[in-house]
Amino acid sequence: MPYVNIKITKEGATAEQKKRLIQETTRMLQDILGKNPQTTVVVIEEVDTDNWGIAGETITERRKREKK
Amino acid sequence: MPYVNIKITKEGATAEQKKRLIQETTRMLQDILGKNPQTTVVVIEEVDTDNWGIAGETITERRKREKK
Amino acid sequence: MPYVNIKITKEGATAEQKKRLIQETTRMLQDILGKNPQTTVVVIEEVDTDNWGIAGETITERRKREKK
Amino acid sequence: MPYVNIKITKEGATAEQKKRLIQETTRMLQDILGKNPQTTVVVIEEVDTDNWGIAGETITERRKREKK
Amino acid sequence: MPYVNIKITKEGATAEQKKRLIQETTRMLQDILGKNPQTTVVVIEEVDTDNWGIAGETITERRKREKK
Amino acid sequence: MPYVNIKITKEGATAEQKKRLIQETTRMLQDILGKNPQTTVVVIEEVDTDNWGIAGETITERRKREKK
Repeated sequence: MPYVNIKITKEGATAEQKKRLIQETTRMLQDILGKNPQTTVVVIEEVDTDNWGIAGETITERRKREKK
Repeated sequence: MPYVNIKITKEGATAEQKKRLIQETTRMLQDILGKNPQTTVVVIEEVDTDNWGIAGETITERRKREKK
Repeated sequence: MPYVNIKITKEGATAEQKKRLIQETTRMLQDILGKNPQTTVVVIEEVDTDNWGIAGETITERRKREKK
Repeated sequence: MPYVNIKITKEGATAEQKKRLIQETTRMLQDILGKNPQTTVVVIEEVDTDNWGIAGETITERRKREKK
Repeated sequence: MPYVNIKITKEGATAEQKKRLIQETTRMLQDILGKNPQTTVVVIEEVDTDNWGIAGETITERRKREKK
Repeated sequence: MPYVNIKITKEGATAEQKKRLIQETTRMLQDILGKNPQTTVVVIEEVDTDNWGIAGETITERRKREKK
């Protein structure tokens, strides 16, 4: 019955990678907590780098700094 | 004062349908819990079928299987 | 497949009322969007009145004002 | 360590405004609660006006009424 | 930078199990997406079985049925 | 109309501090984006340190290390 929400920045995750995230999250909840995979829901949200902040700066700014 | 977040897959819900979801959710909270509709907030999020998983598979995969 | 999160203040909603919220939300999504009730998940969160604010004041303060 | 999720309607917030939201939220949590800014995460979500309801009507409808 | 929110019913998950969920989620995001574990945040929420519904019934009801 | 969800670890935030978080968040959204404070909702969630992870460890573990 678990519900898992994964938020990541929108930086090119592929359909294949998202499929794996869903598979592995579902398996992990079965392995660790014995949760029924049939009712495990995983929702991935991809967020624009302008809309994500850490340490008071946006990811857009951080990526620029990192490239320098 | 309630806050309701409805997440559905992005599969063509119309503006009219979303309007009805908002109306009925607001009324339901007034009917069952006596909540003031003036401050009831409803937010609908539509999620790409690649980003939604149940039972360890994405909705994209599930829809393909269903069509077969 | 929908996932619905209902946040309300913790002010005495009964198990019976929460049961009705879950039933009606699930039915509403079937009626309006044709969603399969078998995989509709509803999670209710009850939040302390000190932790909920509207219009810049907590619900604790608002309830006090209303009683006067 | 805080995580802050700010949901607003998609009505033209600029990258500059979102940067300020992230800066000020991070600083506020440091000022009021002494939280370490290095691990404060802020995620802004912009929601279509058709998908946001208050008082049982969508923001799309409300904006139309306000213009009249 | 990912943020992961895992919601489960409050049915006795131990501190040890929650520790493993956090470790494995963090590792999974590094393995699949190359995300930096230093800024990966995982928040687990345990929800009362009266407050969680699937298929229109609460988990409290479902558990009772299952025991019969 | 904004909705803001602030998640922090449950480590003794006072009612007074939470009141200030609500006031300042509401004012910030008015200052930066011109949002109407009357319909700004802020919900604070306090999460057990066993249930919050960063960098693959729980806050409970991190606090122990910091004390050494």
